[in-house]
Amino acid sequence: MEKYKQSSVPLEERIADLLERMTLTEKVGQLNQRMYGWDAYIRQGERFELTDAFKDEVARGGGMGALYGLFRSDPWSGVNYSNGITATESAKAANQVQRYVLEHTRLGIPVLLTEECPHGHQALDGTLLPVNLGVGATWNPELMKQAYSLMAAEIRSRGAHIGLVSALDMLQEPRWGRSEECFSEDPYLASQFAEAAVRGMQGDDSQQLAGTDKLAVVLKHLCAQGAAQGGRNAGPAAIGQRELREIHLPAARAGALAGAAGFMAAYNEIDGVPCHANPELLTGILREEWGFDGIVMADGQAVDRLLTLTGSYESAAALALKSGVDLSLWDTAFSTLEEAVYQGLVKEEELDRAVARVLRLKFRLGLFDQPYVSESGSAARRPEYQAVNLQIARESLVLLKNKDGLLPLSSSPRRIAVIGPNADRLYNQLGDYTSVQPEGSGTTVLQGIRSVAPEGTEIVHALGCGIRDLSTSGIAEAVEAAKGADVAVLVLGGSSARQFGGDFDSNGAAILSEGSPSEMDCGEGVDLADLSLGGVQRELAAAVAATGTPVVAVIIQGRPHALTDIEELCGAILCAWYPGTEGGRAVAEILFGQELPSGKLPVSLPRSSAQLPVYYNQKTPSRPRVYVDMPSAALYPFGYGLSYTDFAYDNLSLSRTVISAAELEGGEEVKVRVEVTNTGALAGTETAQLYIQASESGITRRFAELKGFAKVTLNPGERRAVEFTMGREELGIWNREMKFAAEPCKVSVQVGGNSRDTIAVELNVRA
Amino acid sequence: MEKYKQSSVPLEERIADLLERMTLTEKVGQLNQRMYGWDAYIRQGERFELTDAFKDEVARGGGMGALYGLFRSDPWSGVNYSNGITATESAKAANQVQRYVLEHTRLGIPVLLTEECPHGHQALDGTLLPVNLGVGATWNPELMKQAYSLMAAEIRSRGAHIGLVSALDMLQEPRWGRSEECFSEDPYLASQFAEAAVRGMQGDDSQQLAGTDKLAVVLKHLCAQGAAQGGRNAGPAAIGQRELREIHLPAARAGALAGAAGFMAAYNEIDGVPCHANPELLTGILREEWGFDGIVMADGQAVDRLLTLTGSYESAAALALKSGVDLSLWDTAFSTLEEAVYQGLVKEEELDRAVARVLRLKFRLGLFDQPYVSESGSAARRPEYQAVNLQIARESLVLLKNKDGLLPLSSSPRRIAVIGPNADRLYNQLGDYTSVQPEGSGTTVLQGIRSVAPEGTEIVHALGCGIRDLSTSGIAEAVEAAKGADVAVLVLGGSSARQFGGDFDSNGAAILSEGSPSEMDCGEGVDLADLSLGGVQRELAAAVAATGTPVVAVIIQGRPHALTDIEELCGAILCAWYPGTEGGRAVAEILFGQELPSGKLPVSLPRSSAQLPVYYNQKTPSRPRVYVDMPSAALYPFGYGLSYTDFAYDNLSLSRTVISAAELEGGEEVKVRVEVTNTGALAGTETAQLYIQASESGITRRFAELKGFAKVTLNPGERRAVEFTMGREELGIWNREMKFAAEPCKVSVQVGGNSRDTIAVELNVRA
Repeated sequence: MEKYKQSSVPLEERIADLLERMTLTEKVGQLNQRMYGWDAYIRQGERFELTDAFKDEVARGGGMGALYGLFRSDPWSGVNYSNGITATESAKAANQVQRYVLEHTRLGIPVLLTEECPHGHQALDGTLLPVNLGVGATWNPELMKQAYSLMAAEIRSRGAHIGLVSALDMLQEPRWGRSEECFSEDPYLASQFAEAAVRGMQGDDSQQLAGTDKLAVVLKHLCAQGAAQGGRNAGPAAIGQRELREIHLPAARAGALAGAAGFMAAYNEIDGVPCHANPELLTGILREEWGFDGIVMADGQAVDRLLTLTGSYESAAALALKSGVDLSLWDTAFSTLEEAVYQGLVKEEELDRAVARVLRLKFRLGLFDQPYVSESGSAARRPEYQAVNLQIARESLVLLKNKDGLLPLSSSPRRIAVIGPNADRLYNQLGDYTSVQPEGSGTTVLQGIRSVAPEGTEIVHALGCGIRDLSTSGIAEAVEAAKGADVAVLVLGGSSARQFGGDFDSNGAAILSEGSPSEMDCGEGVDLADLSLGGVQRELAAAVAATGTPVVAVIIQGRPHALTDIEELCGAILCAWYPGTEGGRAVAEILFGQELPSGKLPVSLPRSSAQLPVYYNQKTPSRPRVYVDMPSAALYPFGYGLSYTDFAYDNLSLSRTVISAAELEGGEEVKVRVEVTNTGALAGTETAQLYIQASESGITRRFAELKGFAKVTLNPGERRAVEFTMGREELGIWNREMKFAAEPCKVSVQVGGNSRDTIAVELNVRA
Repeated sequence: MEKYKQSSVPLEERIADLLERMTLTEKVGQLNQRMYGWDAYIRQGERFELTDAFKDEVARGGGMGALYGLFRSDPWSGVNYSNGITATESAKAANQVQRYVLEHTRLGIPVLLTEECPHGHQALDGTLLPVNLGVGATWNPELMKQAYSLMAAEIRSRGAHIGLVSALDMLQEPRWGRSEECFSEDPYLASQFAEAAVRGMQGDDSQQLAGTDKLAVVLKHLCAQGAAQGGRNAGPAAIGQRELREIHLPAARAGALAGAAGFMAAYNEIDGVPCHANPELLTGILREEWGFDGIVMADGQAVDRLLTLTGSYESAAALALKSGVDLSLWDTAFSTLEEAVYQGLVKEEELDRAVARVLRLKFRLGLFDQPYVSESGSAARRPEYQAVNLQIARESLVLLKNKDGLLPLSSSPRRIAVIGPNADRLYNQLGDYTSVQPEGSGTTVLQGIRSVAPEGTEIVHALGCGIRDLSTSGIAEAVEAAKGADVAVLVLGGSSARQFGGDFDSNGAAILSEGSPSEMDCGEGVDLADLSLGGVQRELAAAVAATGTPVVAVIIQGRPHALTDIEELCGAILCAWYPGTEGGRAVAEILFGQELPSGKLPVSLPRSSAQLPVYYNQKTPSRPRVYVDMPSAALYPFGYGLSYTDFAYDNLSLSRTVISAAELEGGEEVKVRVEVTNTGALAGTETAQLYIQASESGITRRFAELKGFAKVTLNPGERRAVEFTMGREELGIWNREMKFAAEPCKVSVQVGGNSRDTIAVELNVRA
């Protein structure tokens, strides 16, 4: 047997052996992930037939590096329950694909199957979690690690190997349609989730990916996509090195250190250089600095976009490959790499390096030893998934306002009016990258209220208006419903629900023209200028509020909308993000007090587009200034969120108030201790947040920087000490020489329940 | 006689000789510009008495580096015609100051007198030009050079030596209150004016500043203040090196190459490093790369702001001095430099370097040889100033809309209603940094219309509303006025007029709280979130338009407001910026067709704050995207402006369609030729604009880049060829290695009357 096929041979020897046997064509084949997975098969009754397009692609490359989206289901792919692959059919279909590749190629190199999972698995029967923005609001990476672990088992059991996981984009621009895919505007908080994604899906040992419950994680996007100018998708980020280091790279670093199998390069440019053509980023920082040895995947057709820099497919492919891209996604450019070698644009050794990385991942996944997956049953739709999903949804809900204790709803409201465009539309609460759902799956807010409300409660429902539709014809009915009710639950917000029949570009982004009548106001390619709630939602809220019936607003949204008007009109506001399939139940449990709200804002909520940027961790100008017509501060600050009980902070202390930079460099640390007390009447959960505000460190610093958090559940009257640790990692900076180091500085150490309301103590880092 | 006093001794020898004689205290004295000039004297009847504060300051430093604002008049300084120095008194007062310094110090080093002139001279009787934003709209640097030359003569005749000239800030953020001080959003256009300022004030030989009509120019601000985040004054600029080079440095470089005597450092930071603490900028780029040998002046108290980086005045001063700052402005830090030397924070040689630069400027100005100015009469308020001022105002007016030829007004309108908050308030059309005006100086739009309108025209006037006042009580009167008129001239916009009795910080910036009732909506410290016209101006326009009387809107403004509503309501729109004292006449001449409008927008006009940034020369994302709710394009594009006649472009050609990068590096050029025809019925002036849109050059490029322009006056039917030249300067880029070089690329060479409507031809720059 050939050496590379022998599982007893050390990994690198197997790779070297295989590489030696490969033709240039076969090498190029391994670097290509060209076709859409849903074009690889056609359903014929109970079975799937592989298409000529697929077979041609295998023949063309003497194999296939990877196949994207075999299970992807959505309006773009056109895959649904009539033509797609369900959970129970997946393993068989995946094995069929794999078998074809192995049996119809000279060397029998298995194909990687890549699946989209920015928030769960975008496949028929795939578990859909709340979007990342909601996950960020849980401040519970441990819970999310558990969810990712279950997701990995589910997806691997269906036969796929790679999950594309959104984890790296920082939400600095709420106008951006992909805001929902960001965990936070804060690099520290996002880093915790990036690490949770990797450890959850891959396990703690990134070398061991062969397990049937492990999925190789490709984190996206590297890097700074969240800094896109104007929030316009894939727009330029004109930022400098320090901004990049401080804000946009920490989550990627956390993912790399946790052992992520791969990274997807970002569409955007940074200061004139597209990420796919950025060797300092993809090689210098990622591999040389962080020691990453996995793959870098291109974003969809992104290498082709480099033609604006180079003029030809061959030179675009060469530029990307030399910069550090290993595996393509749908582009033409990488299929010309053979020609690029002949033209002298790239050396075969450079190709070999990329091929070795792709092969290494395949070996690590165990595919050469066991290319097939058990067909005895998939791990999809298991009850434990639903429980974790529900728990994430619960913890993601952020109570923004609760005037006079309007919430929780009294245990005996006679009549509740449930009103609004997001009250009863499941797709509107699922976010972008959502698969076609079977009828009856998931719970809307209306359904949740119906199932959770005390027996005998009368529930009346009115649509009121659409998300962006300008018709006011439904408002009268909503007013009628509110008039006779004890409380009106107004479910407003946005939607990333893609319509069948809509137009998509070859990347799956919605093609929306200016002033598009679509009801979408979020999602990839759906960037918004004005952050006010769309359509006539404000008018609806005003009309309902004018009835005098108390109004609870539930905001279902994939981005931070400007809620200034809603704040004025409604007695209580619960921000629910896109809470996923279990979201309706979670909302209802909180409304009725079965659960206490505990979510905290992972982003600052703006008053208006006019005050952007509004993220909390801006640089301290020497003298902060306000706009003359509007505060520059957020409507609700980062970290904010109420409960039905209250928490107090006191006795903040440090283990030492002076430490030297050298001691920090040597590994010494400062302990921060604070006491948190539940001063209210109900048991509840609080997230204590540690911030620093530093100065005198030779560079400018930020208004505040999150450096730790702890979620504690306390009974009424209970007091508990919470401890944080700050060392070089937390107190170091990218200094004037752009080296990461502990530097002498003054630090105001702040702890509190949000970024605005904190208590503080001073730490002196001396020379 | 000491060597340094002998005019026959070579300059550098004089400096060295003097430096050798100076004590450390005297050296530090030369680096300080501590006090406000208006605190140096008190008027006593006809004469001025020097204050103890002034005498103490001279004694303290054994001399005085410079004295700022001896003539500055405005609400902040409190200087007016009852207590300040008029034009005819200036020379005597300046000599009095100079004499005291020379006679009361050991070495007799003259003091520099620094004056504020962002748009003319901010002094009693000082000529006030239109603000830079209006100047930018003239696209006529030659005219501005002439104006600067007259300004220099005026100011020097009054005894001052240095003019602080706003020229370097790029208007990328219209929310910024200092937008009015920017010439343009475009670096090429701004560079032409920066050069005009230097050559106009200093003459073409920057070594010869001793002439009685020459003023040493300190250009401000270095650098990237226009990129401040959110348009918040002095806010951080998180930009990278290439963005800095491409956008923010060209005007400074043009000023340096033209021989500017000095630069003022900017308040803001760039990617974590305040400009005052940035040696790469103030020494590396400015001195080593550009060969600049003048002074770097701090901005007001800016060195003190470095305490947030360093913790003490001494270390802040040392950091600024070592970075390249030579002369302070009002800060405490630089007065501690002696102590800083004792503490070892800075070496005396480093001080000497800065002192030599200050002395060099004094020698170049001839102050050691002739420290006094003629008292026989000042050059202020000469008739030729008024003529140039009027001409600038005329050329600055931009006609944005002219439906059905509403303008020029028919030669026989029976009755004209002149309405609006800016119709008859002189200060509202003068901008920030404006001195107290004598009664009866200048012409408002109402006054201009009265003086220009044909005999027998009835002019009715109504205020209508305020700039930001929310009262609608004046609208009814305005509607009445409009009803009986043939045309309504609606003079709307903003104001930078500072109120006596207002609060100012120690830098003279208005202290406005959130929701301030001030009528200001522009000026330093007056940043605006919502760019719509303030107060009830929209309601006024709607009410006036509803009368059916044709409405001509004249917009007097210091920033690009969002005119979307006005565009819908008014038949014609004339953008007048702050047109200065002669502005009312200029507007009236254009309205009545005595002059044809010829101004072109130096900035893109936004639709709304929600679509920012909107500047035209953004980086080309691989695939431009729109917001789903609003176009991302400007309401009116960069370079736009109508006339009363029409122009056509054709026969665009290149002297060669292929050139190599090496040929460009060797000095070869490409000529661009286009023919412009006046296709209308009136003689008029057009500004032909040359843009390039380049690709395949290894880095990303911009939607368009201005590379030349030519203002041509054509009779009806006249056709003229216009030629531009493109060489290394125009076609070079900051390449992947961050070196400026000609690189192979494809160029679409575009010429037209604005940045949107152009004809194009291809140029190939080959390897």
